[in-house]
Amino acid sequence: MFRFDRQELRSSLASVHAEELSVRFQDIDAAGIVFFATVFDYFHAAYEGFLRRAGCPLPEALTHRLWAAPLRHAEADYFAPLLFGDQLSIHIGAAHVEETEIVLGYRVVRADGTVCAVGQTVHTFVNPETRKRCSVPAEIVSYLAPLLG
Amino acid sequence: MFRFDRQELRSSLASVHAEELSVRFQDIDAAGIVFFATVFDYFHAAYEGFLRRAGCPLPEALTHRLWAAPLRHAEADYFAPLLFGDQLSIHIGAAHVEETEIVLGYRVVRADGTVCAVGQTVHTFVNPETRKRCSVPAEIVSYLAPLLG
Amino acid sequence: MFRFDRQELRSSLASVHAEELSVRFQDIDAAGIVFFATVFDYFHAAYEGFLRRAGCPLPEALTHRLWAAPLRHAEADYFAPLLFGDQLSIHIGAAHVEETEIVLGYRVVRADGTVCAVGQTVHTFVNPETRKRCSVPAEIVSYLAPLLG
Amino acid sequence: MFRFDRQELRSSLASVHAEELSVRFQDIDAAGIVFFATVFDYFHAAYEGFLRRAGCPLPEALTHRLWAAPLRHAEADYFAPLLFGDQLSIHIGAAHVEETEIVLGYRVVRADGTVCAVGQTVHTFVNPETRKRCSVPAEIVSYLAPLLG
Repeated sequence: MFRFDRQELRSSLASVHAEELSVRFQDIDAAGIVFFATVFDYFHAAYEGFLRRAGCPLPEALTHRLWAAPLRHAEADYFAPLLFGDQLSIHIGAAHVEETEIVLGYRVVRADGTVCAVGQTVHTFVNPETRKRCSVPAEIVSYLAPLLG
Repeated sequence: MFRFDRQELRSSLASVHAEELSVRFQDIDAAGIVFFATVFDYFHAAYEGFLRRAGCPLPEALTHRLWAAPLRHAEADYFAPLLFGDQLSIHIGAAHVEETEIVLGYRVVRADGTVCAVGQTVHTFVNPETRKRCSVPAEIVSYLAPLLG
Repeated sequence: MFRFDRQELRSSLASVHAEELSVRFQDIDAAGIVFFATVFDYFHAAYEGFLRRAGCPLPEALTHRLWAAPLRHAEADYFAPLLFGDQLSIHIGAAHVEETEIVLGYRVVRADGTVCAVGQTVHTFVNPETRKRCSVPAEIVSYLAPLLG
Repeated sequence: MFRFDRQELRSSLASVHAEELSVRFQDIDAAGIVFFATVFDYFHAAYEGFLRRAGCPLPEALTHRLWAAPLRHAEADYFAPLLFGDQLSIHIGAAHVEETEIVLGYRVVRADGTVCAVGQTVHTFVNPETRKRCSVPAEIVSYLAPLLG
């Protein structure tokens, strides 16, 4: 079972895609910082953006029942609190590809360059009709190539 | 186009269903109070609870494609800020029923009795196959009867 | 108590600010369309963007305790379902300004030009220290001027 | 750096607290199942409930600035999709306590007994004034005792 090391995710400068977003008013919790689970929404924004750029947008995959990629695992490490109004770049900075599965590594970088959080998600590709595992689409593998050893 | 008066919603003591909930950590926004849109989630909790009690739970209606009830309108009035940890009762305190449409009135009451917000939602009943309007299910009309003039 | 007419909000072409966004994967509900309360998040995205452009960004107002603008009322009307991946422009298309209060009108326009929803929010300006009402900041009034009769 | 094994979290029957909840209409994503990040909200519901029961409710800790417990890490493993209307028990089924930090293990159990997901969160206790690390409150340690080896 492949996992990225969180310190390597943190110190890496690699990136195949970055989604720019700013922390929303409602992303804040009762402690005055971004709610920890919301960072996974930020990861997903980068994931959706990456798929669009790679030429296999998620809305199309769902509509035409081309593939589904449910998550088997997700994790995040938090290094610095995120505050309302922070301008963030969510980088896809690491990738591991297997026959029917990908692991994506994320880096949440504040405008001042601070890496505030990192994380990873494991997606298993399945045929939406049969629910059986299927190959990772070729466009996705190509787009991730710069990150593959 | 039927609408409830917000002062009547506020002062009413009527109720056919109340959902008890406490304000979650992540319901708070950057101003330190419940985000205004989250009150609509609270209304929906009361709506889901009411349907369950009325004998036509929403999950079943969706699974068996019995009916759908998309919203045409939703509104809320805010009288007092809701804070993290507040214990709330979300009452369905008013109802108006037409052939293919219902209007539900909500009252958000804090444990100390303060009415912090009120609101209303307008649902149009449609056949999920044809997308044509259909009659409001009889169980729903019965359950709302105590609120109907 | 001022309110915009929803048909006027729908047919208007006026706009002082538009926020571009696409419907996120998690904005969808169990009925397969954008959850009704999420449209209020979209309105707020336009509100935050408008304040930034008007020169009084909300994060600064909160940090420096310049003003707060809690909502007294919010409402939305839904004309067409919003789907995953839809590209939306959220326009601030109407405004009404009083001494200590503003009413903003929103228009949710899909890439094909369809107005899928409209809505309005009523904000009361208060001094964060005293909680007493205060004047609407001049920059906000200026920015809204093109929409004021 | 302590972490629970996910298969041990999955097969354990231990529990010091269970929060009962049902999957909400808006918890569903465009793929028709609970959005992966929402499972962390479920974990947090169990965390809030556990703190209340342990005699140190989170709202009080925040109001009286007794302690804060920001997350350093969070992760989840998904075994079966969660659907709208599913009745879930979110168990706190494992705990590891250090001087200034706790690791909590969660188990998401459907009404039919299926363990649909597991996860863990790492909380560091800090003094809200100084932001320096402080001891884990004694009531929390006591309440977790049955889970400590």
